[in-house]
Amino acid sequence: MKNELPRKVTLVEVGIRDGLQNESAPVTTEQKIALLGMLTEAGLTRLEAGSFVSPRWVPQMADTAAVFAGLPEVNGVTYSALTPNEKGLDGALAANVKEVAVFGSASESFSQKNINCSIDESLARFEPVVSKAKAKGLKVRGYVSCVLGCPYEGYIAPAAAARLASALIAMGCDEISLGDTIGTGTPLATAAMLEAVKEVVPLPQLAVHFHDTYGQALANILVALQQGVSIIDSAVAGLGGCPYAKGASGNVATEDVLYMLNGMGIDTGVDMTALLKASRAVSLIVNRKAQSKVAAALHSEVPEL
Amino acid sequence: MKNELPRKVTLVEVGIRDGLQNESAPVTTEQKIALLGMLTEAGLTRLEAGSFVSPRWVPQMADTAAVFAGLPEVNGVTYSALTPNEKGLDGALAANVKEVAVFGSASESFSQKNINCSIDESLARFEPVVSKAKAKGLKVRGYVSCVLGCPYEGYIAPAAAARLASALIAMGCDEISLGDTIGTGTPLATAAMLEAVKEVVPLPQLAVHFHDTYGQALANILVALQQGVSIIDSAVAGLGGCPYAKGASGNVATEDVLYMLNGMGIDTGVDMTALLKASRAVSLIVNRKAQSKVAAALHSEVPEL
Repeated sequence: MKNELPRKVTLVEVGIRDGLQNESAPVTTEQKIALLGMLTEAGLTRLEAGSFVSPRWVPQMADTAAVFAGLPEVNGVTYSALTPNEKGLDGALAANVKEVAVFGSASESFSQKNINCSIDESLARFEPVVSKAKAKGLKVRGYVSCVLGCPYEGYIAPAAAARLASALIAMGCDEISLGDTIGTGTPLATAAMLEAVKEVVPLPQLAVHFHDTYGQALANILVALQQGVSIIDSAVAGLGGCPYAKGASGNVATEDVLYMLNGMGIDTGVDMTALLKASRAVSLIVNRKAQSKVAAALHSEVPEL
Repeated sequence: MKNELPRKVTLVEVGIRDGLQNESAPVTTEQKIALLGMLTEAGLTRLEAGSFVSPRWVPQMADTAAVFAGLPEVNGVTYSALTPNEKGLDGALAANVKEVAVFGSASESFSQKNINCSIDESLARFEPVVSKAKAKGLKVRGYVSCVLGCPYEGYIAPAAAARLASALIAMGCDEISLGDTIGTGTPLATAAMLEAVKEVVPLPQLAVHFHDTYGQALANILVALQQGVSIIDSAVAGLGGCPYAKGASGNVATEDVLYMLNGMGIDTGVDMTALLKASRAVSLIVNRKAQSKVAAALHSEVPEL
């Protein structure tokens, strides 16, 4: 098994965007900046910092421009933002954001309910965003959600994920993040989906994004590693969750992913103790226990804040 | 990947022994019998029901003879008990137990601290138990604990697990259960350990027993499946934990294992809804939430008790 696995993995920290946008506790701009600083300090180099989206829909992200204004430049570190449309992209450009993301769905029903348009309409909407972002020299990530299941349709065929991923790559996206939005994926389904997507997207441009609603995330991530994927999304303290999904669990916890990768000798550049410190800080802010078994087990070893 | 995987898996339910012996809430004999009945009803066919051990050491198991006396005979179902010594075996024989288990450790330090003797001394102690049990026609399971880590020694070499497993098989044990007692195992270590043990124990006689302290259990179980292991220990509601280990997590939850196996199309004969009902029942008895993401996510779908 060992020879097939990547030696290095890049963790993309999505807690401050995908995580916090689904948490009810209010988090101030200063707190977000401080948390992003702690996570960067821990060694994370790619971090989602916000979303340029109507505050009417996602009030937790209304301060994204202010967050970016307050973030220090750190060598080798990229803070990114979601930009669902051209207006969002303009906001990101004004805030000097270097990496943006568009967010589509492999499920027709989820696309309709979540972003109020069909998959094809969403592609038409993303096209000017991606081309303008690329023209301005930005890196663009394309999210494909519901790759292993949809709250409305249930099973999603691997071909559906591959079709959207392929369209986003053709449009100019630099990277595709494949999201198991509702966490119903299991290892063989993950393998089948990745095999289909690898046919149309080069492996170095593929990321995986698992939610741990049913506890399956690490097993699925292991499958992704075995398939050669070396970019993994995760959220400190397992922040977040999907408002349309059952259960309390959110994104897979960065701590738990790091524990597995450390144990496997796969380099991430992230320090566990510093990460646990950030995990404790964010848990105090959102006022709940970290959704991470590693954080629970190692709680007593984390230095006091 | 699919072709290498077992088509059927036997789940060994250890919640009522390994689980409850580490829970502080008192559970009555009648409750244990009722829970074992619900778990059998859910389709589990191999269940640990108790331990014939001094009540001075494990007060939660003092009623094991009464539990066995109250269990109905169910076709195709085996209830088993731990018998650490000849006195324990005599108790099991008197209670008409059909399967017993001895419990050793791959770690010298853990053996000393947990059962107060060296590994070699423990083997000498198990020998008369195993030979008498076999002579009486019982099935005997040999537990090897700390196969992937020890709270005192840290790393445990695969050869240490293989050595004890081999000795227990040579002694006459029908099956070896390899336990990651403190849950520190990760996928590559699990693969290396299993490869070593498979050299000395035939695959059909191998079971794996993971604790989910660091959230690694399902990823490790996936590795075991990929290695051809088809017997998996788990505990309803993730009951238990190790009193010597950090963190609150116990055995991997049967619900979470079943979710993964169901998703992979691997047959277990266990019904999720009936299992969740047993999970809710035991959680009410021990007065805490099930340590299972699946139970948390599907809580609202479980029929009322």
